[in-house]
Amino acid sequence: LLLSSYEDRLAPGCPQVQLGFRYEARDRRFTVYVMQLSNCSALCLPTDQKMYVRVAVLPCVEATRCLFRTRSSPPRDAVEFNEVFGMQISHSALRQKTLRVDVCDTGKSGHEECLAGAQISLADVSCSEEKCTKWYNLLSRVYLPETHVS
Amino acid sequence: LLLSSYEDRLAPGCPQVQLGFRYEARDRRFTVYVMQLSNCSALCLPTDQKMYVRVAVLPCVEATRCLFRTRSSPPRDAVEFNEVFGMQISHSALRQKTLRVDVCDTGKSGHEECLAGAQISLADVSCSEEKCTKWYNLLSRVYLPETHVS
Repeated sequence: LLLSSYEDRLAPGCPQVQLGFRYEARDRRFTVYVMQLSNCSALCLPTDQKMYVRVAVLPCVEATRCLFRTRSSPPRDAVEFNEVFGMQISHSALRQKTLRVDVCDTGKSGHEECLAGAQISLADVSCSEEKCTKWYNLLSRVYLPETHVS
Repeated sequence: LLLSSYEDRLAPGCPQVQLGFRYEARDRRFTVYVMQLSNCSALCLPTDQKMYVRVAVLPCVEATRCLFRTRSSPPRDAVEFNEVFGMQISHSALRQKTLRVDVCDTGKSGHEECLAGAQISLADVSCSEEKCTKWYNLLSRVYLPETHVS
């Protein structure tokens, strides 16, 4: 079992992602740790599709790599990824960014489909060398404001 | 001036919203304070449209009110709202929710258009009676994963 606390068992319905962050001022390096997913059954992933996590540091500047994807996994209720992504960025620039973390699959059409995600403002990301780890609720894309308006 | 710190002047480009939260365990009451917006020029709001802030506690249960809107304001770089929205909810249910906060206008078509937003996982919302206040970066909707896939 990845989760075992009393409250987690009481509230099994909410898909979550566990992330870690670290900003190293000396190397101007921002690191994102995609640790694990839980309660993915609630996402109703297609059983014939593999799932993965997409991480984007936004808005993206052209010269920098800001989009990362984990390996794919068969759809399961809980998945450990333990993957690490890093980018070089100044602390003041980072504090203007927002991190989008989405659970995606490659649909039948071959296009990337994002089913649910978390969005984390980096306005108060700290400069401590310690890794800060947290669970974030994943919100289904059906609740996002429509991206293409009429 | 709503913002005056050195770093804010260094980084004028990022639109932000200042929010406050409080959960009162005794009354099972969750309160959201929509305090102010800054750097809205970066959102390129249509000058002939009024703007407002939409707050949604998601996923939404039918019986509960979970969608709130501030009053409208002419588009300006910084706007103080200082509006308060509350809902009754248990702490364990609240911890499964995500807050979407979007800056919207009513477009020429009369439909609500959301230009940018913040998304805040409430997985670790605390039970303290104190109001917790923070600035969040607003991410333009153009960076959201498409809600309608082909």
